Formats: sequence, C-alpha cells, structure tokens
Amino acid sequence: MSESSKPRVAFLGPEASYTHQATLDTFSSDRYSLAPQTTIEDVFAAVQDGSVHRGVVPFENSTNGSVVFTLDLFADLHNKYNDILVCGEAYVNVSHCLLGIDALSSQDYSKITKLYSHPQAWGQCKTFLQKHLKHAERFDVSSTSRAAQLVAESKDPGAAAISSKVAGTLFKLSLLAEGINDVSGNQTRFLVLRRKESPQTSAPSTSATSAVNSDEENYKTLLLFTLPYTPSDPNPGALAQCLSVFGGHKLNLTSINTRPSGVANWEYIFFIEFKGRKDDGESGAVNAAFKELGGICDNGGAFYGNYYGNYY
Amino acid sequence: MSESSKPRVAFLGPEASYTHQATLDTFSSDRYSLAPQTTIEDVFAAVQDGSVHRGVVPFENSTNGSVVFTLDLFADLHNKYNDILVCGEAYVNVSHCLLGIDALSSQDYSKITKLYSHPQAWGQCKTFLQKHLKHAERFDVSSTSRAAQLVAESKDPGAAAISSKVAGTLFKLSLLAEGINDVSGNQTRFLVLRRKESPQTSAPSTSATSAVNSDEENYKTLLLFTLPYTPSDPNPGALAQCLSVFGGHKLNLTSINTRPSGVANWEYIFFIEFKGRKDDGESGAVNAAFKELGGICDNGGAFYGNYYGNYY
Repeated sequence: MSESSKPRVAFLGPEASYTHQATLDTFSSDRYSLAPQTTIEDVFAAVQDGSVHRGVVPFENSTNGSVVFTLDLFADLHNKYNDILVCGEAYVNVSHCLLGIDALSSQDYSKITKLYSHPQAWGQCKTFLQKHLKHAERFDVSSTSRAAQLVAESKDPGAAAISSKVAGTLFKLSLLAEGINDVSGNQTRFLVLRRKESPQTSAPSTSATSAVNSDEENYKTLLLFTLPYTPSDPNPGALAQCLSVFGGHKLNLTSINTRPSGVANWEYIFFIEFKGRKDDGESGAVNAAFKELGGICDNGGAFYGNYYGNYY
Repeated sequence: MSESSKPRVAFLGPEASYTHQATLDTFSSDRYSLAPQTTIEDVFAAVQDGSVHRGVVPFENSTNGSVVFTLDLFADLHNKYNDILVCGEAYVNVSHCLLGIDALSSQDYSKITKLYSHPQAWGQCKTFLQKHLKHAERFDVSSTSRAAQLVAESKDPGAAAISSKVAGTLFKLSLLAEGINDVSGNQTRFLVLRRKESPQTSAPSTSATSAVNSDEENYKTLLLFTLPYTPSDPNPGALAQCLSVFGGHKLNLTSINTRPSGVANWEYIFFIEFKGRKDDGESGAVNAAFKELGGICDNGGAFYGNYYGNYY
C-alpha cells in the first residue's frame, strides 16, 4: 500500500512521544500513515474535520492521574467536537529518563540547573527530583519528546530533559539517569478517537505493551453529565442517586472524574466510565441506565448525555 | 507588636502571588508575620513541624479545577503530614495580565516568543493564548509572580509573563494586556492549614475579596477515603453507597475529587467535602455518617478516614 493511500492516524507528537508509542502499538505502520500533531486539541480537530481516520490522545496516568487537557476537550464547552466518539484504548508502560548533553561523573546532578518536560512528568518523578534536582528551574513544554529536542538544540550542558529512552536515542542525548519515575509499573492510558460516521474497523493489531480489549465483555462507555449547583437549593443526594443507577443495572464503574462546568463557578461536569455498551439494543442495561439517569437529572434540568462511544 | 513576636503564617510565594493575596485578606499584617515559601509542600512542612502558626495553600480554581499538587499532599502517601488539619478557606478574584519588558504598539503580540507562568494559568487563559500567542513557547514556573520576576530579570523583550497586576507593579513590567482569563469572575479557593494541637483562634479578619465563613451553619469538612480496586471482584456500588450516606444524614456534598491511590494502578483516593463539622458531638450527623462509612468501607478493608478538620 502506498504511503498516501493509507488511512491517517493523528497523535500527540512529536515522534518518540509516549502517545507515538501507544499509536504504534495500536496501528501498524504497514497499514496506517501516522500524523504527529502539536497539541491534544489538534488531534481532536483533525478527527472532527475528517482529515484523519483515527486520533490517539493521553487520558490518564496511573501515578499522576487524569490529563485535564483531554477531559476539557471532551467537555467541549464551545461545541467544536460534536462528532467525536471514543472507539478504543491502549496502555503504555512509562519509564522516564533524565537526558542531557554531557555524561555526568558519579551522578553529580548539581550542574543541571534547567529541567524541561511535559507537566505530567514532574508529578511522576517527584522523589528523584526532590532528592537530586530541587535546585533546578522547571520549564514546561508541550511533550516529553519536545523537551528532549529542546535540550539537544540548546547544546547547554546545564539543561536536561525528562523524557523516554527512545527520545534520547532519536535526539542523540546522554542518558544521565534511567527509570526515575516514583512508581515502577507506571502506565499511561490512551484513548482512540473516531468521527461518528467513520466505520468501525476490525480490532486493531496489538502488541505486548498494549492491552486493547476486543472481548465483548470488556466494552466500556464514557459518559458526561452535569448537576446544577444552586447554593439556595442544594440537592445533596443527586450525585449519589446518579451513581447508584449504574450499580442497579449491574454496570461496573471504572473511573470518575470532575472538572469545572465552565458555566457557573463551583458547578462541575462529571465524567463516568463504566463497563458496558450502548449498542446492546433498547432493552440493554446501558440504555435502561441512560433512561433512568435522564429522569433523575432532568429534575435538576442539566443532564446532557454526551456519549463518547464504546471502547474495544 | 514587634515583627519577631507575631505568629508566622506560611504561604506559597513569592510576594504578589495570588496565595499572598489570600493570606493578606485572611491574616492582617498588624497581627501576623507572613513567611513566603517556594513550594506548596514547603507550606505543609512548615505547618507540620510547628515552625508557623498557619499555612495557606491554593486548592481549586473556578475555571481550571483542582490543584492536584495540593490534593496529593493531603493524600500524604508517605505519612509526612499526619498532624495537619484544615481550619479555614478564602476566595480570591483572579484577573490575569500579560506582562513584558517593553510596551507593544497596537497589540502586536508577534514578537513575544516565550511565555512564563504557573501551569494553572495556561488553562485559565486558553482563548487569549489561542488567539494571540499560539506561536509562543510556554515555560512552566513555580508561581505566577515568579514568572513576572523571571521576565524582569531576563530583560528579554521577547519574553512575557502571565501574572497579576500587582506583580507587574512589583517587578516594574509593562502591562501588555489585562483581564486575559477566559471567564470573568474567575476565582481561586485557598485553604488555611493548622497543626492539630494548635489552638483555634477567633475568626480571622476578613475583607471584601475574601469570604471566610464564621457562621456555624457554614462549617465544612474534608474527608479522604479509598475503595480497593479488585479487577476480579469489582464492587460497582461501593462509591454510590458511600456517597448516599451523606445524603442520608442530610450532609450536603460540596466537592468530590479523585487522585490515583499511589498504591495500586487504577485504584483511587476520593476527596469529599461536605457541609458539617465533626465537633457536633457523638450524636452529631457527621459522627453518625463516619460510623456508617466505616462500616461500608471496612467490607473492602481500605477505609481510612483522614479527617482534615472544620473550616470556618
């Protein structure tokens, strides 16, 4: 298949980012052409405008929690990404390295005065940074691989990046320390996005480092809703009541997140993931739960069942 | 009162940070000596070791959500901050400015190529940044006022900081744009920390920009608990069951947050805030709710009722 005739997959770049790794694990380069993007929003935009077949974005790290940039794009306050569904997930093992220009003698990190990385990485390497690099100023850049690229370009022996070993090789940097994340077994979970009318394809290729669920029982659904916050008339039981609907239909919750609603101060959007799929038919548990949720949240007037599809 | 005999209050500095503003609004400089700290963790450490009377840390922004660094310090995985309680809250109106070395002619932002700020600020000024400064590289620093200081020190006309007007005045920078946050009425909520045995004082002084609740009915409590995640034996109803306890005792939930537990991948710590206080006595609603919660979560074996005191 020629490169130009292959379906394109957008991902948060540049090359050698962990999202690149997740994308390579999920979409074989024999069958897909990979298109690195500068920001997570660029990935959403490319999927929404139909210029790519799929998009891959980071969603959650096992040590450092949710990627709020991605949550806010799903919340979609300006109705820019109405046609986006989630259609897959992938897990990547994350092992951070400290990369610099010159090799260090006897692990003396005192001459490193500037650190570059993606903001998620600081929270994943707290112990190492606290112990060896408390004195260094931190500069936040758009991705861990961009951090490695910046350090390589700077040629500054006082600069170092927290990035992947692959990025160190790509940008010809010295490996100053390896596996510096607080928790070994640190993983990031990525979501695969598609446009609503884009056909479901057969399950993507998998590899040892990705865990794509192709099993019917492992379908998941992501649901967003708001509960209005009225200081004069609070509804303390509403969230518990909404969550109990899932248990009532034997749907296992797998994650819950909140973000500001963007409409009123101290009002929240809730992000719920649970095991199940909406395509089970009218009588299916997910449809029944959605109907019941609509009933509860309509009382508050602000339920909007943004539905981001089934994962496989 | 001489400066050295005043009780000290630690806050996330440097001077002119929004946390400094919250601290000034809550603790009058006539009666307290203010001690700026480099990191949020330094504030926790100063309260824990008893070297300060109180500490002030940012907790949540109305546009950009929770301050995860603060949540993780409350989660306290390494049992370093066992004696810390929350004893107050304060709200500050946040209005971000773009500050630089030279005034710009006709709002031409193209020559600004480097932006410095605290990571929270990027998410609060998305529309302005997307429109005028998409081309600029972003550097993350420890506070918005530190960003202003760095730009002033750099003397680089291509550098700009997102910071407060007060910081612009302090560091003699030009005001390139004012009120650039996405949402007017953008507020940050701060928590006041004390050590367990430190006496409760009378309600602190208040001002127009702070809203310290001194009313008995406005007491709040922050509670943390975990629910174990066992893929082979999931307990889908446990979270809903825990949350319904609060409604059952007519305790209004005011916020819910989750963070990774730090113990096992994809296991979470839940942060619940609700209206009420534990000091109501054995028969009080909060004590009854805690007892009931202990019963539920003990079934899973991982309830730990970290209790961060009452706010006033």
